[in-house]
Amino acid sequence: MTTDVTEPLLARLQEIENLGGALSLLTWDQSVKMPPGGAEARARQLATLGRLRHERWLDPGLERDLAAVERDAPDGATADLVRVVRHDLERASRVPNDYVARSAAHAAATYDAWLDARRGGAIARVVGMLERTLDLSLEYAAFFPQVAHPADALIDDADEGATVASLRPLFGSLRDALVPRVAAWSAAPPAPPLPVGPFAVDEQLAAALELAQAFGYDLERGRQDLTAHPFAIRFAHGDVRITTRAKPDDLTEVLFSTLHEAGHAMYEQGVDPGLEGTPLAEGASAGVHESQARLWENQVARSRAFWDFALPGLQRRFPALAGVDVDAAFRAVNRVQPSLIRTDADEVTYNLHVIVRFDLELELLEGRLAVRDLPEAWAERYAADLGVTPNGDADGWLQDVHWFAGTIGGSFQGYTLGNVLSAQFFAAAARDLGDVDAQMAVGDFAPLRTWLSENVYRHGRRKPVDRLVRDATGGPLDLRPYLAYLDRKFGGLAGAR
Amino acid sequence: MTTDVTEPLLARLQEIENLGGALSLLTWDQSVKMPPGGAEARARQLATLGRLRHERWLDPGLERDLAAVERDAPDGATADLVRVVRHDLERASRVPNDYVARSAAHAAATYDAWLDARRGGAIARVVGMLERTLDLSLEYAAFFPQVAHPADALIDDADEGATVASLRPLFGSLRDALVPRVAAWSAAPPAPPLPVGPFAVDEQLAAALELAQAFGYDLERGRQDLTAHPFAIRFAHGDVRITTRAKPDDLTEVLFSTLHEAGHAMYEQGVDPGLEGTPLAEGASAGVHESQARLWENQVARSRAFWDFALPGLQRRFPALAGVDVDAAFRAVNRVQPSLIRTDADEVTYNLHVIVRFDLELELLEGRLAVRDLPEAWAERYAADLGVTPNGDADGWLQDVHWFAGTIGGSFQGYTLGNVLSAQFFAAAARDLGDVDAQMAVGDFAPLRTWLSENVYRHGRRKPVDRLVRDATGGPLDLRPYLAYLDRKFGGLAGAR
Repeated sequence: MTTDVTEPLLARLQEIENLGGALSLLTWDQSVKMPPGGAEARARQLATLGRLRHERWLDPGLERDLAAVERDAPDGATADLVRVVRHDLERASRVPNDYVARSAAHAAATYDAWLDARRGGAIARVVGMLERTLDLSLEYAAFFPQVAHPADALIDDADEGATVASLRPLFGSLRDALVPRVAAWSAAPPAPPLPVGPFAVDEQLAAALELAQAFGYDLERGRQDLTAHPFAIRFAHGDVRITTRAKPDDLTEVLFSTLHEAGHAMYEQGVDPGLEGTPLAEGASAGVHESQARLWENQVARSRAFWDFALPGLQRRFPALAGVDVDAAFRAVNRVQPSLIRTDADEVTYNLHVIVRFDLELELLEGRLAVRDLPEAWAERYAADLGVTPNGDADGWLQDVHWFAGTIGGSFQGYTLGNVLSAQFFAAAARDLGDVDAQMAVGDFAPLRTWLSENVYRHGRRKPVDRLVRDATGGPLDLRPYLAYLDRKFGGLAGAR
Repeated sequence: MTTDVTEPLLARLQEIENLGGALSLLTWDQSVKMPPGGAEARARQLATLGRLRHERWLDPGLERDLAAVERDAPDGATADLVRVVRHDLERASRVPNDYVARSAAHAAATYDAWLDARRGGAIARVVGMLERTLDLSLEYAAFFPQVAHPADALIDDADEGATVASLRPLFGSLRDALVPRVAAWSAAPPAPPLPVGPFAVDEQLAAALELAQAFGYDLERGRQDLTAHPFAIRFAHGDVRITTRAKPDDLTEVLFSTLHEAGHAMYEQGVDPGLEGTPLAEGASAGVHESQARLWENQVARSRAFWDFALPGLQRRFPALAGVDVDAAFRAVNRVQPSLIRTDADEVTYNLHVIVRFDLELELLEGRLAVRDLPEAWAERYAADLGVTPNGDADGWLQDVHWFAGTIGGSFQGYTLGNVLSAQFFAAAARDLGDVDAQMAVGDFAPLRTWLSENVYRHGRRKPVDRLVRDATGGPLDLRPYLAYLDRKFGGLAGAR
């Protein structure tokens, strides 16, 4: 992409990217390594770097250098770069610097109040903070007066092009399809879980990381650490890290959190290195990103073929698993049971958790629900959609950090888009690759990974989501492959019980 | 310090400090956690943040806001702040931004060549890089035409006020005093070392950290990690970290590296929190900083009293130590033996290592020694001063990173100043505190730590070094307490053999 015309623009984007990498490290360390006393200064450091990065977007020189490249009628990657930078600049330039500073400071304070409330501190404080978050979210939405729904402004930052108008019917159909399926597939008592430990945490981490490496996660350009809330994060093409968590008695915690985050990380590691230093070197959207994590976590690591491959190695490491056969392991990691916590939910109920949040966000933004009534509305929806009732705030509306460290709106749709897309991508790969099950059963994940690299990873943000999905799968976003996958797996499990 | 007049200046300094904290995290992570693939992007991130910080020093607004505070005739901490900021600004404004960028890029490339040479790669490459480092060091010195010796410009950045004219005679006298002492105290075969392990690394880290906490290192505002080259680093008052290293068979490695770095960290943790966000919230100089590390490492942790306290706990943790008594442990950690590696050297020979480096730096800067002749000059000085000859480059002139990640000049004098000052501070504390040995023998380190907090830590950079030393000890920098300490301890050990 580098020419005399593009060079000034690329230099500016590289500087923005350098600040972004430093911001990501500050965030990673905050969750993974930072002692409690570091919090106050960390918030200041994040605010300073965030402001400096935003200032660089607003620099008139960036507009000038971008316009020069646009006038040059670029093609190929440069044309994609110009499209994406113009989009990001158009969005960034609508958001004043003082809003960025105010919302960052508010998010840091809200996160603190949220942590406190979860530890049993005052609920009133976090309710008050969240009311202000709602105001700030609406203020942000108002910077984009062209949108049909305030949530559209927030959704577009994560899932470009998605709107309430398109998501509401999609999620409605999905909910209508899932509720009876959950009832059917959770009617009988669930299969027994995997045997409980204790399993040494070091050994658990090593086992999970070995599987992530078998998938293709490259530790020369990554690392694994423990955290309360697992995530993957990119500092650069050469440094994409995952965090995970482990329970002493439950192997599935470390396995699925590691393999999920490794899916995110392999996506970032697989982007064309020639895009490094530009906004093209990122995932296409929150939904596509999540699809890559869910594909490895669910389509692969919750398949019978995967357990054919993985179980003997796990049994060598963990003698407590000795009495388990592949069928029992496959059943143990595919139990369908309505529950309270999204991140612990099975594949089938998971989207119901997401859709509750999505709908409540819209009600809040539309003024149809007050923050103070959110706990009750949450409990009602859980009772209606999942048939369970929170024991308190921590396993109810306070369970997810998203609203308490960002905005209300835009945070959750990606999870369900990702589930739907994961089945679409996997089905397309399976069509192209022949017997994927046979490959997975002997630990040969290279064909699948290569397909994903070619069709998803390497493009970064070069293709709009809709085109990426069409090019890879032959059609637009579609619920049917996902429902077919669920029916095949869980219908089969329920039928054979 | 905050008033209407100081507020604009403090806001600018806080921003510089926020960038500095982020830079420190990027550096920490580079040594402690970063995967190999992250190196290239990390160099870019460091360069960007370093340049942005330097730009903030050069901003005419900083000069204007500083001058406004100066005109206000401040007193107390504000007067000290103005003095220190004026000093730092005067220095920063002499260094052009392009020099900062060039030297940072060169340092990163040289560090890479140094690592490669140490692993057996080309020596010619690192020699060539170091020749350029010498040029850059002289270019830097030339920004300060008022200095008597080019090294003075580099020394002043670390040890404000120290000069070649003052250090050369001091180090000469010390060398003359040490050479015969080393000969006398290493004439007989050394005492046996502590029993060898294997000791589990986790257990070693826990044991060392427990002792660091007993000294007063606060883990609410710090943490410990493993690295190849131990260091302490401050991100903020609330986040001052140490790194350490451990050998499976040798407990002293983890103990003394941890307690040394904890000494540095306790200094930073002990600075008056009211100075946070300004250049006053740092150690007074490299030499004073090192004195606080060496005080806890040597005056405390290599004393007989400390082993009275620590040995029983270590024996409970490490049964291999069961047969060791306090006298044997005390002798084992105080063996005097000329050796090749500075960081492994005993207290007595350590300064001879430093003085070799200091003298060679001056010869290089004065043009009396060429970089290509450095390996030979190094070997000659080691033979003459220490009676040992390197086996190769890695345990000779390539052993320390300093020249290969910064400048030639200014990096080493602080180590010996620190040793000298450590004895002066400890002697003064002992005068004030009564029987420090009796306190240490029962693990009561609070009186010593409190004395250091009052007399050294809390002042940060508020006092110039000379005044800090006079106020704390009653006199100027003085070799005699250090030599008296060495004679008392090592003369006693040699006499009692």
